[in-house]
Amino acid sequence: MLQKVDIFDTTLRDGAQAEGISFSVEDKLKIAKALDKLGVAYIEGGNPFSNPKDLEFFERTKSIKFENAKLVAFGSTRRRDIAVDQDKNILSMLSAQTPAVAIFGKSWDFHVEKIIRTSLEENLRMIKETVAFFKEKGKEIIYDAEHFFDGYKANPGYAMKTLEAAFEAGADCLVLCDTNGACFPQEVYDIVKAVKKAFDVKIGIHAHNDCGMAVANSIMAFGAGAEHIQGTFTGIGERCGNANLSTIIPNLQLKKKVSCIPEENLKSLTFTARKISEIANVTLNERDPYVGNSAFAHKGGMHIDGVCKDSSSFEHIDPNLVGNKRRFLMSEVAGRKTILEKIKAINPAIDKDSMETENIIQKLKELEHEGYQFEGAESSFELIVRKQLGKYKPFFELEKFQLMTEQPITSGASASALIKVAVDGKSEITAAEGQGPVHALDKALRKALEVFYPELKDVHLTDFKVRVIDSNKATAAKVRVLIESTDGETVWTTVGVSTDIIEASWIALVDSIEYKLLKELEKKIEVYL
Amino acid sequence: MLQKVDIFDTTLRDGAQAEGISFSVEDKLKIAKALDKLGVAYIEGGNPFSNPKDLEFFERTKSIKFENAKLVAFGSTRRRDIAVDQDKNILSMLSAQTPAVAIFGKSWDFHVEKIIRTSLEENLRMIKETVAFFKEKGKEIIYDAEHFFDGYKANPGYAMKTLEAAFEAGADCLVLCDTNGACFPQEVYDIVKAVKKAFDVKIGIHAHNDCGMAVANSIMAFGAGAEHIQGTFTGIGERCGNANLSTIIPNLQLKKKVSCIPEENLKSLTFTARKISEIANVTLNERDPYVGNSAFAHKGGMHIDGVCKDSSSFEHIDPNLVGNKRRFLMSEVAGRKTILEKIKAINPAIDKDSMETENIIQKLKELEHEGYQFEGAESSFELIVRKQLGKYKPFFELEKFQLMTEQPITSGASASALIKVAVDGKSEITAAEGQGPVHALDKALRKALEVFYPELKDVHLTDFKVRVIDSNKATAAKVRVLIESTDGETVWTTVGVSTDIIEASWIALVDSIEYKLLKELEKKIEVYL
Repeated sequence: MLQKVDIFDTTLRDGAQAEGISFSVEDKLKIAKALDKLGVAYIEGGNPFSNPKDLEFFERTKSIKFENAKLVAFGSTRRRDIAVDQDKNILSMLSAQTPAVAIFGKSWDFHVEKIIRTSLEENLRMIKETVAFFKEKGKEIIYDAEHFFDGYKANPGYAMKTLEAAFEAGADCLVLCDTNGACFPQEVYDIVKAVKKAFDVKIGIHAHNDCGMAVANSIMAFGAGAEHIQGTFTGIGERCGNANLSTIIPNLQLKKKVSCIPEENLKSLTFTARKISEIANVTLNERDPYVGNSAFAHKGGMHIDGVCKDSSSFEHIDPNLVGNKRRFLMSEVAGRKTILEKIKAINPAIDKDSMETENIIQKLKELEHEGYQFEGAESSFELIVRKQLGKYKPFFELEKFQLMTEQPITSGASASALIKVAVDGKSEITAAEGQGPVHALDKALRKALEVFYPELKDVHLTDFKVRVIDSNKATAAKVRVLIESTDGETVWTTVGVSTDIIEASWIALVDSIEYKLLKELEKKIEVYL
Repeated sequence: MLQKVDIFDTTLRDGAQAEGISFSVEDKLKIAKALDKLGVAYIEGGNPFSNPKDLEFFERTKSIKFENAKLVAFGSTRRRDIAVDQDKNILSMLSAQTPAVAIFGKSWDFHVEKIIRTSLEENLRMIKETVAFFKEKGKEIIYDAEHFFDGYKANPGYAMKTLEAAFEAGADCLVLCDTNGACFPQEVYDIVKAVKKAFDVKIGIHAHNDCGMAVANSIMAFGAGAEHIQGTFTGIGERCGNANLSTIIPNLQLKKKVSCIPEENLKSLTFTARKISEIANVTLNERDPYVGNSAFAHKGGMHIDGVCKDSSSFEHIDPNLVGNKRRFLMSEVAGRKTILEKIKAINPAIDKDSMETENIIQKLKELEHEGYQFEGAESSFELIVRKQLGKYKPFFELEKFQLMTEQPITSGASASALIKVAVDGKSEITAAEGQGPVHALDKALRKALEVFYPELKDVHLTDFKVRVIDSNKATAAKVRVLIESTDGETVWTTVGVSTDIIEASWIALVDSIEYKLLKELEKKIEVYL
């Protein structure tokens, strides 16, 4: 790796502008630590002036030692017609005590005159004086030229003058922002090239995704000489979001051999992207390049066949390089091959032309029609295959359950469940309370079954997802419930579908328990084989 | 508009390869009609050989007259070592009776030798004979050069020979496929340029999104001379998906003045993208360019201020052009301005420094901390503002409800609800059954209240969404329920959060009813003012 690019993460600042994002200070600290561990060069923590939470964040980071990243406070140039050292925004940024600051200023004459409503000359002074002020305080200065591309297209002379003001006052890096996300790749290339030629200083790119090309625009800027790339993890940000760093980093590091993060950390990329999404409480787009759950998922029979012969036939990189993994999906178009592999694990004598294979494919189609999906619920799928093969005997029978939910709450819990199950002709009836009906039902079921199967004591649910399938039918709509369970060693996922959320949850809960008991039984059988 | 590009939609074929997608024949027909209405040039309906459902789809389209689009059947070249008119795949494609066919063949020597395992010469014959066969049958032939870019990079001479084979046999369009999605924009530009120079025929592009640059790669191919662009709606497709046509179409039509669909249809773009997502049962990414719910959503105070002064300050296009709309989001960082606008609608005397404004912002922060989000649930937000301002009196009181769910079902419905409410000191107790507890509760509540408020008869729920907020707490996790209601004239959305899904649904249901009654009351008051 000869070349190096500075990765400047703004998940905590520009990412926080995304719809649906609301970081607590704790969230921000956790994300900053994850980013530092991954090894980005800069973490923009927030705008200490506009948000008291950001100020608290900077206070609390003062006691943290970051290993790879420099912390950056963000804010605008001084306001018009005020001395720089009298501007509260500037003083807030200073109080954050970060080694670097990102100062944004206006490059587009239209914005200067119509939005902040000052003269073009005063805007240049605002830039110059603000940069000079922080320079004197010994800060590293990243100058964000807001709307640079739009400004350059409207009035190139003035846009260049704003950069000159920042450059002459001592900015360490001039970042060209496509604030409205309106630029096309070739434009970005040409304009970055022109700026690079004019200034002997590090050039950066800050792209937004309103035309769906923020990643490509960042890559084109790099091609034109940019050495500093701003973006967010998984691309969150205002409107259509920012350039997605979880795509840009592997694009450059794996395909252009440019160092973005320490090489040994690239395999933590998927983990980091998912962790940040989890803290931010956003669902990671499963189709996200490199880190998405579907990024290396193959469904078509011919593709699965190709990947089995040589993975490079339908995979652009080895998924392990970024800590992701390959998946073969089960579905009607998967081709019999994938389904057959699952069947053979249970009964090796069955081949693709067997009646049993046909029956299982038929059953699969029926269930998919009802709203089931077994992609990601392989444990439920295994139980179905076993049932179709006649290789299955339920571990218990439900005699009945009754669930009660009431308002106002009279007994300390909103829901209670009564359940009666039978194992080998012996019944057990019990009850439990919970936070909501599914919680009560889950507790009651395990309580009843632990009498017969003490190994269930270690089982608990780790994830619970609800998807409304035909949501336009409102409360009578079908729902799909996915339940992830663990016994502390392995993790398995099961699925249930019904118009009744309780029934859908029940189906998935039963599968979860049955699957665990099946695996325990298989372990015991193995000893005797 | 001087230039024109053929938009080739493969949502029904390559889109169906996406994880989680399982189209019924009905779904496919609905999507094809929506695409035709929007005005794409080609609709690839499927692979009649690999999937019996696709064969049925083509059967059923024979009686449909499409206004704008040509229907296309997809399939591979003949298999190795077999006569073209003996190959079942070829005969299936023919039986689809479409005016055009898309034939894919191998361009990458590695794929020829290692995956389909034949000689380089036989592969050329396969391409040539297949194209010639369909040409003789009078079909328009779109030749998809699979893995063209990877093939060109590995062995440009051979890759060009495969195109030559298709060209000489009479292909009407040579489509260069980045099947593995591994290409960078500059590469795409250079390679398309080279091909364009070599062949006097229409060149197409088919890009995948594994590097997050499928849209940009399509745009760069257009810049290099491609006049046919393949992609899917909202970008669904295998692994990371295909080039997103709902981004490419407005990119080219609005920004490059290239005609992709009839100009008057562009304003149906958002509607079409959402409709296709709904039929496909995928959640449209809210950050999707142009058509996403957040695409023109503004959250930061400074941005909202800028857009109010001039929308082009932070919007790259007018959202109306694509049938989307601008939204100002409510949240703690929105700045007081947005919140104040909502408050002023209720009490114009309140200003941004009033105690009431402070209290509402404080309440908003608390609720956001609990997991509430009012973005998209403006009706619940209005009720909160009114409650904080003391401008609210509930329309009814809940005395109690009791919900029962049971298995096995003994009475024809899995859930029943008993409810007792009071209005102005008068009680009403009633009960209802439903498919699941929320459905039963919704029915019982409206039944009880209709005694007092007959105007509720027209109200029904149109959407019901469940989001698990901290899903790693499994069944004891918090859930956020969003309910969309209508009275046939207007639509409003309310929200509830709780660890108990029933309680969360209850909160949102109550808000929905209260909001409707409030609006009815406002109408009555207006008459007297």
